[in-house]
Amino acid sequence: MNSFSPKVVRINLAERSYDIVIAPGAMGDSTSYRDLPTATTAVIVTNTTVAPLYAARLRQALLARFTDVKVVALPDGEQYKTWQTLNLIFDALLGGGCDRKTVLFALGGGVVGDMTGFAAASYMRGVPYVQVPTTLLAQVDSSVGGKTAINHPLGKNMIGAFYQPVKVVCDLDTLRTLPPRELSAGLAEVIKYGPIADLDFLVWIEANVVALLSSDSIALGYAIKRSCEIKAWVVGQDEREAGLRAILNFGHTFGHAIEAGLGYGEWLHGEAVAAGMVMAAKLSQRLGMVDQGFVERLAALIRRAGLPVVGPHLSDVDNAGRYLELMRVDKKSEGGEIKFVLIDGPGTAVVRGAPDALVREVIDACCLRE
Amino acid sequence: MNSFSPKVVRINLAERSYDIVIAPGAMGDSTSYRDLPTATTAVIVTNTTVAPLYAARLRQALLARFTDVKVVALPDGEQYKTWQTLNLIFDALLGGGCDRKTVLFALGGGVVGDMTGFAAASYMRGVPYVQVPTTLLAQVDSSVGGKTAINHPLGKNMIGAFYQPVKVVCDLDTLRTLPPRELSAGLAEVIKYGPIADLDFLVWIEANVVALLSSDSIALGYAIKRSCEIKAWVVGQDEREAGLRAILNFGHTFGHAIEAGLGYGEWLHGEAVAAGMVMAAKLSQRLGMVDQGFVERLAALIRRAGLPVVGPHLSDVDNAGRYLELMRVDKKSEGGEIKFVLIDGPGTAVVRGAPDALVREVIDACCLRE
Repeated sequence: MNSFSPKVVRINLAERSYDIVIAPGAMGDSTSYRDLPTATTAVIVTNTTVAPLYAARLRQALLARFTDVKVVALPDGEQYKTWQTLNLIFDALLGGGCDRKTVLFALGGGVVGDMTGFAAASYMRGVPYVQVPTTLLAQVDSSVGGKTAINHPLGKNMIGAFYQPVKVVCDLDTLRTLPPRELSAGLAEVIKYGPIADLDFLVWIEANVVALLSSDSIALGYAIKRSCEIKAWVVGQDEREAGLRAILNFGHTFGHAIEAGLGYGEWLHGEAVAAGMVMAAKLSQRLGMVDQGFVERLAALIRRAGLPVVGPHLSDVDNAGRYLELMRVDKKSEGGEIKFVLIDGPGTAVVRGAPDALVREVIDACCLRE
Repeated sequence: MNSFSPKVVRINLAERSYDIVIAPGAMGDSTSYRDLPTATTAVIVTNTTVAPLYAARLRQALLARFTDVKVVALPDGEQYKTWQTLNLIFDALLGGGCDRKTVLFALGGGVVGDMTGFAAASYMRGVPYVQVPTTLLAQVDSSVGGKTAINHPLGKNMIGAFYQPVKVVCDLDTLRTLPPRELSAGLAEVIKYGPIADLDFLVWIEANVVALLSSDSIALGYAIKRSCEIKAWVVGQDEREAGLRAILNFGHTFGHAIEAGLGYGEWLHGEAVAAGMVMAAKLSQRLGMVDQGFVERLAALIRRAGLPVVGPHLSDVDNAGRYLELMRVDKKSEGGEIKFVLIDGPGTAVVRGAPDALVREVIDACCLRE
């Protein structure tokens, strides 16, 4: 067993500042929760897959601090990231007499985190919540930024709020039982931080990808910490996504088109982002912003991480047209213009539009023919 | 015709500051909208009752500034203040390709304002919105404070957000066609500011109640301006209702029990608040905080304003018990303790609990026997 010292990343957002604790066993350690707001009731929101694995452990740790700890288990899957499921949380909160001081705990992956966060933002116009993410994707992605949302039939994450947790507890032990496909999908969001912000981190990931894929706690602990630090640096300058924060969506514009085009859940989010990053890098190259070598280097790392480097075919009639259509309804588009996050030299990202014809060429070059 | 100079109340909330414009004809005057954020699309959210009266007028004024002005007309009534109706707004926004810069306009009463505000808070995690309230209640109550919400089957306004408009446009002409019952209901929220914060204003209302009831623009303009100023002073010190702001709920604890107990829509909100204020004043008296004369003075003004001074009978078995039960699930209760806004000497309010036995006595003394 490797030795490990718990890591804490402080997210500085004035009166909404909070800590991310990263350590093996952090979830079951009652000291992880000692600085939370005072309340009699805590509600653990989780799903039916995660509940049998961790709900009892978390509940036990919380009983040191809360008199009453309820558990709400939602159906598992992106297709349940809907108002109907969100309402199950509200039903439980109101049925259980929960008041404005009740603290919610999001125990699970990104879907549970996004829905619990939005429930916390909206219940009685806002109650405190804690993220206890159990997937790598959720630990690096939803730990920082306060983005919460549900899906609408016409678009993913279209209804939500910016709402910060009061704490994030990343228990590295939960990653040991994560299916390899989900671990790889989480790595997509780790890899992302290299091209957009930190070339040294990209070099580190290249050197440690095997350790990461084998769930080594020291490697994962560092990867999560560094990802959270970079994200915090970006979000700290632009909490409500007016400008800079958009660079965190590297790979996501193409990625959302893949997810929407295939139907959510067909590809994992991280898989869609992985192929999307290659497309965005390729588009950057076509615009003369990075060279071919960098695109190939990024694609090679993504492939080594067990992730797709080409996109799926979304239409037999006009595949590129379908991608463009889906990207135009993305909430990051403005007045119909698609905004791409592009690499302006390795380690630096910019947000800009691109000519449709060029985007079509990139999609044609980066998609699987059936 | 009386002469009138437009009034502007500035709400100071740092980067969320905004103006309330109060004037006859303000809605149709395109200068009311000249300082709004730049966007190509505006969406007027209204209801099927208000749309035929004012939607064309507002749309015409907005076309001076927005290329595309859409209108969404919701079904009219508190019973439609639900997620299902809110979703009609999201459907229209997404179906119409609305992006993050689209500006929403809430044209109507409190229900339209609350739902449009929550839609604006949640759509793509937040788009700008403007309140164009067409009832007295909405002009004095939802103009300031940024409270938005929908109802849940287990409680009113249980799901929502604190989200400030970028502007409020109060057109006094819309009050000329308001049914007398709704004008009176709006006056309940005007009268409220006297006992809790400004005894001079209470004296002014006593002297002007006839002019107010006859829709005199000068009297209404002053009443709205002063109400907004007092509310702004309170909210400015406590935007998220941590403490002081709760005094604005004078009459609302009993009032919500009345609305919930009868079924929402049976009594108008202002009518329930009116009877609730008498109950809260009576409770203050029983606790030795004001004298009998003040309770009678307040009840007399409420009666002159055409409003009820006693509550309805909510249960044949245990009426006071039913009131208590309904008040305990109100979102202002904490750990099961009901918080009352009480008058601690005329012009000053405090928030505190009270013994159940005393509350029962007050309810028994202030309720109609069938």
